[in-house]
Amino acid sequence: MGVEIERKFLVLNEDWKVLASPVHLRQGYLNSSPDRVVRVRIEGETANLTIKGRSQGIFRHEWEYPIPISDANDLLDTLCERPLIEKYRYRITINDLVWEVDEFLGENAGLVVAEVELENVDQAFVKPSWLGAEVSHEHRYANASLLKHPFSMW
Amino acid sequence: MGVEIERKFLVLNEDWKVLASPVHLRQGYLNSSPDRVVRVRIEGETANLTIKGRSQGIFRHEWEYPIPISDANDLLDTLCERPLIEKYRYRITINDLVWEVDEFLGENAGLVVAEVELENVDQAFVKPSWLGAEVSHEHRYANASLLKHPFSMW
Repeated sequence: MGVEIERKFLVLNEDWKVLASPVHLRQGYLNSSPDRVVRVRIEGETANLTIKGRSQGIFRHEWEYPIPISDANDLLDTLCERPLIEKYRYRITINDLVWEVDEFLGENAGLVVAEVELENVDQAFVKPSWLGAEVSHEHRYANASLLKHPFSMW
Repeated sequence: MGVEIERKFLVLNEDWKVLASPVHLRQGYLNSSPDRVVRVRIEGETANLTIKGRSQGIFRHEWEYPIPISDANDLLDTLCERPLIEKYRYRITINDLVWEVDEFLGENAGLVVAEVELENVDQAFVKPSWLGAEVSHEHRYANASLLKHPFSMW
């Protein structure tokens, strides 16, 4: 069992975009309930099956297993809930912290969020100049939630 | 992606019981919906995460991944739907076919079913003398269904 401690923010502008090259992510859900999320994700040439427990603030239990990319394609194409989520991810390292900026596509086009994974819940960090309001506690920004209530419907 | 072609029967008596030694199975569900079952199972000293698509008659797509037994215990203890399912499984080989006889415990105590996995949907096989009525098409005998409607409530 792993632990995910993550804070999520909106972005103010596109200054982050020149800081990294995007990787394409395609993901779907075998369960999108906040109690027990089961996610299939293809990122570039790798694929993972990820299980997440219910969020407790910014803290969440997580279990992740690599799976063959052909299995992931089969699961995404035939079994996962509809629609799938697609986005470009930009990984930007600032002061030893990795920021993941996700630029959503499809029904969530227009939405961009920046996430940082922390070691502990009260860890301090420097905010990049392009960072906007925090949305860590807003469930509608969760990917599993964006499935049923995409950004284009807000 | 694998394929599961399975026929399921009741048993007439306990003549099967002397033919094999039981293994204890403990399993739970991260999704028990028939559309996309996600099961965690500990069988003896091994653990698996298994994903199953919707049954089409006796045919079903299946994906299975081994996971650490400590992860499986964490998932069963903290995350899976309640209740868990526990049973003893007896594996009995007859004419090169493996029969799995499951003797349920807990809220499903009293239920015993025998399953055989086939190579193709119209494969012929010899029925053991202790085999009773076929229940392949009765959804209430599916393990994911026994979770919500245990045998003791029938």
